[in-house]
Amino acid sequence: MFDAVEKLKEFIRFPSVSTDSRFKEGMSGAQKFVSDLLGSMGFEVEVVRTDVHPIILASRGGDPAWPHVVIYGHYDVQPADPLSLWTTPPFEPTVIGNRIYGRGAADNKGPLMTNIAAVAELLEGNPGLPLRITFLIEGEEEMGSPSFPAFLATHAGRLRQADFVYLSDTALPNENQVVLTCGLRGLALLDLHVTGARVDLHSGLHGGVLLNPIQALAEICATLHTPDGSVNVPGFYDGVLDVQPWERAELAKLEGDGKAYMDFLGIDAFHTPPGFSPFEAVRFQPTLEFNGIGGGYQGEGTKTVIPSKAFAKISCRLVPNQEPDRIKGIVMDAIRARAPRGVRIDFVDQHKGDPYVVVPPGRPNTPKDQSPVLARAFRAAEAAVTAVWGRPPLFLREGGSVPIIPAIKRATGMDSVMLGLFLPEDNLHAPNESFNLDVMRKGVETARRILSGITTS
Amino acid sequence: MFDAVEKLKEFIRFPSVSTDSRFKEGMSGAQKFVSDLLGSMGFEVEVVRTDVHPIILASRGGDPAWPHVVIYGHYDVQPADPLSLWTTPPFEPTVIGNRIYGRGAADNKGPLMTNIAAVAELLEGNPGLPLRITFLIEGEEEMGSPSFPAFLATHAGRLRQADFVYLSDTALPNENQVVLTCGLRGLALLDLHVTGARVDLHSGLHGGVLLNPIQALAEICATLHTPDGSVNVPGFYDGVLDVQPWERAELAKLEGDGKAYMDFLGIDAFHTPPGFSPFEAVRFQPTLEFNGIGGGYQGEGTKTVIPSKAFAKISCRLVPNQEPDRIKGIVMDAIRARAPRGVRIDFVDQHKGDPYVVVPPGRPNTPKDQSPVLARAFRAAEAAVTAVWGRPPLFLREGGSVPIIPAIKRATGMDSVMLGLFLPEDNLHAPNESFNLDVMRKGVETARRILSGITTS
Repeated sequence: MFDAVEKLKEFIRFPSVSTDSRFKEGMSGAQKFVSDLLGSMGFEVEVVRTDVHPIILASRGGDPAWPHVVIYGHYDVQPADPLSLWTTPPFEPTVIGNRIYGRGAADNKGPLMTNIAAVAELLEGNPGLPLRITFLIEGEEEMGSPSFPAFLATHAGRLRQADFVYLSDTALPNENQVVLTCGLRGLALLDLHVTGARVDLHSGLHGGVLLNPIQALAEICATLHTPDGSVNVPGFYDGVLDVQPWERAELAKLEGDGKAYMDFLGIDAFHTPPGFSPFEAVRFQPTLEFNGIGGGYQGEGTKTVIPSKAFAKISCRLVPNQEPDRIKGIVMDAIRARAPRGVRIDFVDQHKGDPYVVVPPGRPNTPKDQSPVLARAFRAAEAAVTAVWGRPPLFLREGGSVPIIPAIKRATGMDSVMLGLFLPEDNLHAPNESFNLDVMRKGVETARRILSGITTS
Repeated sequence: MFDAVEKLKEFIRFPSVSTDSRFKEGMSGAQKFVSDLLGSMGFEVEVVRTDVHPIILASRGGDPAWPHVVIYGHYDVQPADPLSLWTTPPFEPTVIGNRIYGRGAADNKGPLMTNIAAVAELLEGNPGLPLRITFLIEGEEEMGSPSFPAFLATHAGRLRQADFVYLSDTALPNENQVVLTCGLRGLALLDLHVTGARVDLHSGLHGGVLLNPIQALAEICATLHTPDGSVNVPGFYDGVLDVQPWERAELAKLEGDGKAYMDFLGIDAFHTPPGFSPFEAVRFQPTLEFNGIGGGYQGEGTKTVIPSKAFAKISCRLVPNQEPDRIKGIVMDAIRARAPRGVRIDFVDQHKGDPYVVVPPGRPNTPKDQSPVLARAFRAAEAAVTAVWGRPPLFLREGGSVPIIPAIKRATGMDSVMLGLFLPEDNLHAPNESFNLDVMRKGVETARRILSGITTS
């Protein structure tokens, strides 16, 4: 009998922080642990070397007529710092009540172990299960999956033999309501650098003579939104997918209390594009955000300097069918066109990711040529969630980004079924991350039923 | 015979960095060195304790009918870092050609020693010189003179017995042209803090819902200037002193090459208020500058965060008769009025300083009741500079600030005669600071003639 909680504990003990080379051993330990575990379950394991951290491919073959699912997950975790804010050691899993605490407990070790446990139970009960399964488990998710494009270039053919991707790396809005995520936002990131004088200047000796790059930066950034909350870049909304009436209706079933959300955020007013509630805006609308800004003196007290340089870090969350490179281009064009004289503008291109949408079967906008196995997976998921959780799932797009999902779609044509398992209170990417073991138990049962369900046409 | 260069070397060897408590010994060493030097010249020295670094008061009394000059200077220096950029050790004075290198060489140890040397030579040649002299030498200039107001509160009465202040802590535009500084800009500094959500947020999960504080900050900062280069705060220019035709004419004698100035700054366009050349703007117009800006992620790469907070450090350079507290008030009012909903605005009040102007005798706007000794000092300075440097000085306001000068004026009514001795190439506040020894030699002779000149009515 597969003990999912014990296995999860073992998994969490490996400090697999992908972005920090000091955790090299934790990374290889986590990779070997998962590889050995899947090997022990009868999977044929291949560890695909990449430029950074290897990707685990573990296959259970079978009759080519059987449906074929790719189960995605990642064995790497975010850094644990600031360590001083943890109440239990981040890499020493600790069960308190119905929660297991530790870095990666919810993102993504717990949900991944949930799906591994479901497969283990399924195969224990039915070793001849007519289902082909390929685990695709990467170690670079928390660093933006830099090796994934190269992996896809060499392995797309193999993945193309599968029917769909199944994963649990999205959110559960609350303990009673499962969401099948039907869309993800994309990303387009760039840094804007503004340079004025060749060196920092004394603001007494030269103040009033030249344009301060912080002022120029503020003036540029201030043009990028209209007061109503829209992004003010010509062409930004071109091609943005309309929201289907069924999507709004689906979201209406979930929509919570605006006041409670405001209190959670600690703000006294929302700021959304016109015609969208905050709950709609985050799922259906693109954004242009400033993730950081800097320039000049930042310490205590004062320094009367006119800085030479200032910068802003800009990221756009994109919705279908916005194309990241086109968005980067028009944002840079708008900034160049609006930059005042007397400063120099430079950009640093950062990473990007396509937006993604998949339409469940039976909707007015479901593609006519949708894969029958994918449609079956969605129906199996709906039935499984309804049975296990006591109410049907919602089919919603989400505001976050999982760039490998659209990358797989682009390379292989395969869509994804995304069943969220982490809760808002799980503290992802924050101290005292935890995973709800009731959710895990229900998640195992749900995944078991879904995977079983797709084998019966 | 007083050896000014040797004394300056001794003075520079004390690492008297006032802002850094690790240099306590250097501070007390420099203070004792100056106190002992003035004592050896026959001055009665009083070391006035303050909350931070003591102020040296050294007096030469005499007949109450004699004119009485206060000679100001400071014995503290800026920090020397980054040390790696110095080609000689900052606290090991090194003479190369006609320059002495070392931290504080030009600001203010060299110019101060110039004036001490002039007094020493004068008294050696004429021990009975009918002139009362009080040296007022502080140790907190480079940290904003925090103890000076308290010092003035207790010592204004004593200073009021003097006729004027003489100092060399302003600039010489080039080696051939002396400026008698007739005005200084004031300062009004505050930090603006903008707070959005109570914590940093994931830009995928919440982006599009709320106003990003960086965006709010940029939008606020962008309103604070008009495109023509003026400060866009109602009432900002109220009471700004008109520029006298003689001031423009005086400046026209100096005005250099705009192209060369642009090249020096490394910019391709000036940005001045309408109706002012860059050379005029810096001396005659107030500014509102951003000395720093910060918020969110500032490292390499990306972090898709909506920060909770952002800030800007704002400083206004003020001209007569702008009042710093009123300016702070209207800037804060404008910012509060323009702040968008959904963010909180807070201010941190930083320091301030009044602007200052003194009109030399014989100008259309010279006060009718100008002190005769002050008038004599200006005329003596004009004659001395013309004799020593081969051309008359220019009488110009300067863009920088020396807040103790208006503070003395306010507390005692005394005006200042400021004869600049540091050159643009002296690298004040920067690595490889140096002082031109030809300037020093001429400066000693000039100061000697001025001080001698005021004794003869």
